Amino acid sequence: MSTQALQQDTAPQTPLDTLSGLLKDDMLQVNTQIIDNMQSEVPLIPQLAGYLIASGGKRIRPLLTLACTRIYGTDSPRPHALAAAVEFIHTATLLHDDVVDESKQRRGKDAANLVFGNQASVLVGDFLFSRAFQLMVADGSLDVLRILSDASAIIAQGEVKQLTTANNLATTMEDYIEVISAKTAALFAAACEIGPIIAGQDDQAAAMRDYGMYLGIAFQIADDVLDYSANREKLGKTVGDDFREGKMTAPILFALENANDEERAFWQRTVGERRQTETDLAQAQDILNRHDANGKALALARSYSDKAVAALSSHRESPLLSCLTDLARFTVDRSY
Amino acid sequence: MSTQALQQDTAPQTPLDTLSGLLKDDMLQVNTQIIDNMQSEVPLIPQLAGYLIASGGKRIRPLLTLACTRIYGTDSPRPHALAAAVEFIHTATLLHDDVVDESKQRRGKDAANLVFGNQASVLVGDFLFSRAFQLMVADGSLDVLRILSDASAIIAQGEVKQLTTANNLATTMEDYIEVISAKTAALFAAACEIGPIIAGQDDQAAAMRDYGMYLGIAFQIADDVLDYSANREKLGKTVGDDFREGKMTAPILFALENANDEERAFWQRTVGERRQTETDLAQAQDILNRHDANGKALALARSYSDKAVAALSSHRESPLLSCLTDLARFTVDRSY
Repeated sequence: MSTQALQQDTAPQTPLDTLSGLLKDDMLQVNTQIIDNMQSEVPLIPQLAGYLIASGGKRIRPLLTLACTRIYGTDSPRPHALAAAVEFIHTATLLHDDVVDESKQRRGKDAANLVFGNQASVLVGDFLFSRAFQLMVADGSLDVLRILSDASAIIAQGEVKQLTTANNLATTMEDYIEVISAKTAALFAAACEIGPIIAGQDDQAAAMRDYGMYLGIAFQIADDVLDYSANREKLGKTVGDDFREGKMTAPILFALENANDEERAFWQRTVGERRQTETDLAQAQDILNRHDANGKALALARSYSDKAVAALSSHRESPLLSCLTDLARFTVDRSY
Repeated sequence: MSTQALQQDTAPQTPLDTLSGLLKDDMLQVNTQIIDNMQSEVPLIPQLAGYLIASGGKRIRPLLTLACTRIYGTDSPRPHALAAAVEFIHTATLLHDDVVDESKQRRGKDAANLVFGNQASVLVGDFLFSRAFQLMVADGSLDVLRILSDASAIIAQGEVKQLTTANNLATTMEDYIEVISAKTAALFAAACEIGPIIAGQDDQAAAMRDYGMYLGIAFQIADDVLDYSANREKLGKTVGDDFREGKMTAPILFALENANDEERAFWQRTVGERRQTETDLAQAQDILNRHDANGKALALARSYSDKAVAALSSHRESPLLSCLTDLARFTVDRSY
């Protein structure tokens, strides 16, 4: 067996790779839309936007819009610009999040706020957000505009609610699910819902919206588990960011359910009051292991990915349907 | 003569007061829309938005939308929600600007970023921006959506360009006019342009757009003069903010035109490199006076307010038309 074949064996194709393969020609068009529409006569805008957008990212949201359109057999070019609009909304929230979280790293590189400054990150985020709406207006569907403006308002509300739950040990699992439904899953849901709308299959919009919502919740729970996992560094991300910021995510919430007094005092000091020493992250990971908190969080994520799969039950078998189903499962499994 | 009458004499009615009086019932509806639509189940959102919105502000942009609709005689309720959308876009940009500029004061109170933090200011700005688009979608006019999404993209570009011209003594008057046309005048123009669109007088949209654009440019130049004027403190604003931030505004640009070597070195140190001592603002004001820089800037502002008045020449005489004309003149005179 050649070395190349061996490498392929050790890095098996993910459902996201399969989806990208099926939608390759469409994604080329989406990337053209993204590049063309982040241009501006003010050079700093394409520089900063390009820094983040060219640094990769999985393009999962535009892929969802494409898949949820093409699954109905239409060959309309409309999803290209609208998938770019979805990616711009996502990129704008990343830029603003990194300012809000004082992030150091994003996609394995220095975060844009460190390279270009907070000011430019806020304003280029505003530009991309506006540009997303310009793309939607050019498309002309008020339904799409409604779905994505509703999602944008919900995302912002979720982010603000996350600010108010951070460092608060009284945060409930319900609060947490509400925050991630808003800050993450709302855009997944919208990215999926506009697919059937573009394809003229409005009666499927609710099912696709549900799929995206549950997928997004599963995705974010798994991401929050990854934040405590050494695997995360392989993805070009820092381990322990949520811990250092005192975010109340699923692993901590499960660990708190059966915490003894000493553990509760530990979480109160480190997460509640953000007084942390160098060894605290390792100790946090020990406590999470003691309570199988990551395992419980992944089981919760799996319950949402099951719901995502179930939401697609009325759809006929097709390669894209298989991809969407596999993607829901993979979104949890990737964190092992 | 009673004390009250005397006070009225000493504080004469401005064109903005007259406009508010003529549009009093409409403005009550706009304020209701503003209050209702800044509500959220996340309490921090109405708290922060309310802090800024309730602290006054002149509501000049929603008044423009109302005036530019009612001038055509229509009694449609549509401008209420759309004027609120315009004010939300403005409020969102204020919140983001204050984070970007590290502002200390806004409308005579501590700036929202100081009271609620940068994080909440960025995210509540995003919320209000999204809510503005939700209001436009509910109204259903793609023309209005196009005008305001275009304006939003232009505003963000202007703000980014301003970042790149700040502290740069090579900035030209052309650069400056381009920045203020985008960051300030684009929203004035859009606020005015949607009036005839709402009223079904699409053929008047270009004239109203021009009026708003020229008014906005005149307004911003006068505002930049005010930043060096002691009168500014009466308006609840800090004197010298632009100077401290090294913004290249009209007064400095006029002073630089005929600057001697010593003056140029002064501007290079204080504005170019932002190395300032306590007495520098007073010296900057002296140099501006020496070159009549504020007077020249106000003359430039007046040339734009003349263009604003001229843009209305095809409109019939009416109390609202007189108000719009007077407002264009007042926007420059207020800085004396």
